[in-house]
Amino acid sequence: MESKYINEDLKRERASPPFDPEALSVGIYGKDMFPKLVRLQSIFAQNDRLSLRHIWSCDAKTRYLHACRIGEELAYLIRKHKLIDDPQIIGALQVMVGEDMFLLLHLTMFLSTLEAMCNEEQAKYWVPLARDFRILGTYAQTELSHGSNVSRLETEAVFDEETDEWVLNTPSLTARKWWVGGLAKSCTHCILMARLKIKGTDYGVHPFILQVRDLHHHRTLPGVTLLHIGQKIGYQGMDNGSLHLQDVRIPRRQLLMRFCEVSKEGYYKTTGSRKLLYGTLTFTRKQIILSAGAHLSRSVVVAIRYTAVRRQFASSTEPGASEQQILSYSTTQRAIMPLLGMAIAFIHTGRWTDSVYQAFKEEGEKGVFDGLEEVHLITSCLKAYMTLAVAEGIETCRRACGGHGYMQASGVSLHLVSFLPQVTYEGDFVILSLQAGRLLLKAVGNKMAGGALKEGLQSSVRHLYDFDPTAAHDLQDVTTENLHCPYWLVKAFERRSSVMVYQTAQRFASLGGPAALSAFEAIKVDLTKLTVSHAQLLVLRAFLSQIEALKKAGEVPVYRVLLVLFRCLALAWMDEHLAEFLIGGALGLSSHEAVKEALTASCKEARKTAVVVADSFRHTDNFLNSALGRYDGDVYRALLESTKAEALNKEDVAESYERHLQFILHPERKIARPKL
Amino acid sequence: MESKYINEDLKRERASPPFDPEALSVGIYGKDMFPKLVRLQSIFAQNDRLSLRHIWSCDAKTRYLHACRIGEELAYLIRKHKLIDDPQIIGALQVMVGEDMFLLLHLTMFLSTLEAMCNEEQAKYWVPLARDFRILGTYAQTELSHGSNVSRLETEAVFDEETDEWVLNTPSLTARKWWVGGLAKSCTHCILMARLKIKGTDYGVHPFILQVRDLHHHRTLPGVTLLHIGQKIGYQGMDNGSLHLQDVRIPRRQLLMRFCEVSKEGYYKTTGSRKLLYGTLTFTRKQIILSAGAHLSRSVVVAIRYTAVRRQFASSTEPGASEQQILSYSTTQRAIMPLLGMAIAFIHTGRWTDSVYQAFKEEGEKGVFDGLEEVHLITSCLKAYMTLAVAEGIETCRRACGGHGYMQASGVSLHLVSFLPQVTYEGDFVILSLQAGRLLLKAVGNKMAGGALKEGLQSSVRHLYDFDPTAAHDLQDVTTENLHCPYWLVKAFERRSSVMVYQTAQRFASLGGPAALSAFEAIKVDLTKLTVSHAQLLVLRAFLSQIEALKKAGEVPVYRVLLVLFRCLALAWMDEHLAEFLIGGALGLSSHEAVKEALTASCKEARKTAVVVADSFRHTDNFLNSALGRYDGDVYRALLESTKAEALNKEDVAESYERHLQFILHPERKIARPKL
Repeated sequence: MESKYINEDLKRERASPPFDPEALSVGIYGKDMFPKLVRLQSIFAQNDRLSLRHIWSCDAKTRYLHACRIGEELAYLIRKHKLIDDPQIIGALQVMVGEDMFLLLHLTMFLSTLEAMCNEEQAKYWVPLARDFRILGTYAQTELSHGSNVSRLETEAVFDEETDEWVLNTPSLTARKWWVGGLAKSCTHCILMARLKIKGTDYGVHPFILQVRDLHHHRTLPGVTLLHIGQKIGYQGMDNGSLHLQDVRIPRRQLLMRFCEVSKEGYYKTTGSRKLLYGTLTFTRKQIILSAGAHLSRSVVVAIRYTAVRRQFASSTEPGASEQQILSYSTTQRAIMPLLGMAIAFIHTGRWTDSVYQAFKEEGEKGVFDGLEEVHLITSCLKAYMTLAVAEGIETCRRACGGHGYMQASGVSLHLVSFLPQVTYEGDFVILSLQAGRLLLKAVGNKMAGGALKEGLQSSVRHLYDFDPTAAHDLQDVTTENLHCPYWLVKAFERRSSVMVYQTAQRFASLGGPAALSAFEAIKVDLTKLTVSHAQLLVLRAFLSQIEALKKAGEVPVYRVLLVLFRCLALAWMDEHLAEFLIGGALGLSSHEAVKEALTASCKEARKTAVVVADSFRHTDNFLNSALGRYDGDVYRALLESTKAEALNKEDVAESYERHLQFILHPERKIARPKL
Repeated sequence: MESKYINEDLKRERASPPFDPEALSVGIYGKDMFPKLVRLQSIFAQNDRLSLRHIWSCDAKTRYLHACRIGEELAYLIRKHKLIDDPQIIGALQVMVGEDMFLLLHLTMFLSTLEAMCNEEQAKYWVPLARDFRILGTYAQTELSHGSNVSRLETEAVFDEETDEWVLNTPSLTARKWWVGGLAKSCTHCILMARLKIKGTDYGVHPFILQVRDLHHHRTLPGVTLLHIGQKIGYQGMDNGSLHLQDVRIPRRQLLMRFCEVSKEGYYKTTGSRKLLYGTLTFTRKQIILSAGAHLSRSVVVAIRYTAVRRQFASSTEPGASEQQILSYSTTQRAIMPLLGMAIAFIHTGRWTDSVYQAFKEEGEKGVFDGLEEVHLITSCLKAYMTLAVAEGIETCRRACGGHGYMQASGVSLHLVSFLPQVTYEGDFVILSLQAGRLLLKAVGNKMAGGALKEGLQSSVRHLYDFDPTAAHDLQDVTTENLHCPYWLVKAFERRSSVMVYQTAQRFASLGGPAALSAFEAIKVDLTKLTVSHAQLLVLRAFLSQIEALKKAGEVPVYRVLLVLFRCLALAWMDEHLAEFLIGGALGLSSHEAVKEALTASCKEARKTAVVVADSFRHTDNFLNSALGRYDGDVYRALLESTKAEALNKEDVAESYERHLQFILHPERKIARPKL
């Protein structure tokens, strides 16, 4: 393939943008983060060991092997460039790899659990080993029949006073650990979540550290049975495993003792807040939120570039009239421009969530946990909504690529199946939105009972305290100016959300309130809707605050383009959830035409610079791994090239002919059908 | 595995249903169809050659090979049982196979095109060959850069008067035929859609029949280049191919001449309506509509059975309280019960569409094509909406299965990736909904111009003619009785749809109407929404008419259960598109609570018999191909069993250790990193 070719449409789209693309990149990623990304990219650049091209055509086993090759290279690079000390760069690296595998879980879930759950003595021993990859670990919690309800896990650790050991067992078929990433073939250790039992007393689920394979030959240790759980529709780089334990013994000190201690005599003592026992999950959710925007942006970039290159249907009825770029269709713009806004908004939201989490963690180190509820509300609500929105967004991008979007070589189809598990793992959408919804009701309950706004919850639910459900709402028909104004839009989202929360609280109370399980059951669906509305509000706030900062910093051209994308996103959400805005009195019944017009106009405006904005994410062709989304736009040649990797193209007549097809065409060749 | 085990929860769910399950099966499939399905099932029963189990774990190449094995078996069975004469049974068989491959395309697209497009003489020659599988064919239309815009296809057939032949060429990179199912490795022939050119005149795209492989050894013929287009995220049983033609010559008579003829002298003559030139696409869309309900029902059955077996979270806070079936959560019911209704409604809609199509075809044989527009409206609108709804419905079912839903062994994840291309192929959602939306506007335009309802369009758009946009609407707050009444619900859907169509027509006119291309661009998004609303109306009508028939036939218990499912579906759609009902004045602003209550109550009611209704689809375990949806509910053992097929479980220490992992754990073992 020629290397200098650039598709003519893309050239034109890229000519004379009304802003400096690098300034936009800084606006997207932030001043802190942008240079780190540039540094990482220079480390990654032209590194063939990190290539993802094999994913288009290889089988699952080979893909796992290649993921291990990538893992090896990452460990090498992390050691060489001493990256382990910068959690931000490690986070960015995890996304930039474009393929998930044991090594990333080792960093996200294993190392972070050790850092959070070990006491000082334990940390001194385990953390350096994990940081230097001298052990490779994962996090074993989910069992075959228990995921969401952690308190019913069956795996047990029984204390044997005589030997000062824990005796570990998965006592039934359904107690087997299941889904544990990297545990099948890759890891040597895991954090084992198991019921801690001493002298017949069950103290509930606790974290232990368990070695599963020897460090010299990688063989499974006695009493341990590891299985690969089999194939998934994507995500084949990750060897998800199952773990069966039969009377496996580990020293007492392999209970992670930051928050509780067990003495030689079997005396159980709490030494810290048990509230943080599931801290790994909160941390992991925060990481998921932090990377959601990048995942979405990958598919959005592919869709924008491809729809700029793909032409279909003439723009006029004159014979010989040239066909239009699909990107110029209003239907394409309506589908993709809000997602472009969403990708950037989610990146900002991720950074905001990270800062909330860091502040909480710093307080925690001083023994203050006031912010726990807020952090739980924010992370559950955003994790639940954002993963769903990204999964749906990727699928929308895939469909925008038409038939070719279904090819692995499109990239987006692979993004889709790789991302789908995020909707479920580390907290399923329904379970997390129920938890978040409950906390929203609790805030209203507190206010109605005369309570004041807790400082910790300030940023997230202040509007619920400010809202007066009894006040008459002076509803006016919406104007174009209103819909143009980001502050007005955020207020409308606040009102919609407030009305929903108060209406649900009322309904809950009328059904019997917290005392009645049936009342909770009856409002579950509403709670999931509260979560969506609250999440959208948080996202818009985070996005707007970033846009304001750019304006203040004098970055006017960048500010302008992001403001247009803010409108695309906010108006698309308003259009999608219109009934909630009508019912909440945030919009008058006849406002829908105005919303539609404003949305269409914003999407049309956003389309003008869409290709340059897409470029500003600075995704490399290797990260996109897409024949359709490549920077040069040489899509059809790339699709043709991609067929070279297909095994069935190696010979003209396939094995299928000899074995089956000939007997369809010539049944007489099969004299007698053999018995199976 | 024990064969007599039945999960206790499923046993209880199945005990004493309030209706006769077989009567419900008849109610779902219809009196005509049900015995045919039973016959097919007896042919399929216990036939290991048709097993799908390999799909859980095999690679793409093996899956294609197994699909050919299944194809061979199907051809054998079709010949043996002389099934080819019954299009209904062939249609049902195609779904029941549970895997798509060349042989099914041969039946749907190749054979049907020959039957429709050959003149008498041609039909005499080709049809018997195709019916007896002496040739295997497919339909080659889409090119690398053209799918939706058929009129811009580039492949050409130039008439050579001297030799009385067509000279076929794909004159550019982008002209290559692409995506053609079965063409890579399986088929011997194809219908080639190519521009017909005579003496420099371009007569547009016409169907030709072209042989691509020899019948003796299956080798590619001279001038023909066939390629496998590479891997997709699913659907690996189908070998989608690419075709390049260089000066391939075929006799003049291989132009299919039902609607036009070309004489030896190069004289082009129309002999029938060109309107039917793309009849294959209409037929194929009808087939897609006909099978959509069955595809959805497969995932719904899995989700219902698995959520009945899966238990999570205690139903009370007492210690030791047993956990609840997930099926009992209001959130699960809200997600799945409307889909259960939708699956049945779509089956009915499929049968109704089939009857409309058959009537049209019969008229066509008499040379009457008055119904063409109606058939096009109905098939485009339903194909566009139903495939999208099924894809989203399958994904909802997959998520309801939690983490395990991501395994291939879950079945639903495979249903998802297998079904996704249907949203795009044979008419992308956007393109078809624009066409359907335009026809709706045309109906309104006709009425406004004083035109009368055309008989042909009667069943589908009568409400648009009956609707008076100028009349004041006497809007009352909705009552529970209203929401219970299926006739009231259908009226509400009619009103919503009518208001939307009239508002869009008004907007279109104010923007310049059909004369202005920009006006059409501006209403495109609205047109897609019109299509959704019209499709939902057609589905509810078809469903209700079937329910009424059951009531008239005295099938009261079956009538009752279907009526509950009708409500679940109609109310869920109402809830989802609430704003359109509010704006259309079909519901008052304060009606949303009543809709919510009625929907929750209907879903709760439907849940009571959900397992028995699921059983009544009579899907075999082989067709479901799901560890989670098996009839006996032995899900956890089945998941554990499924790991036996995983290649990585064959050895304890994987190749990855030797090649990569050891160098992460022991970097000192790699003395010098080899250059790549």
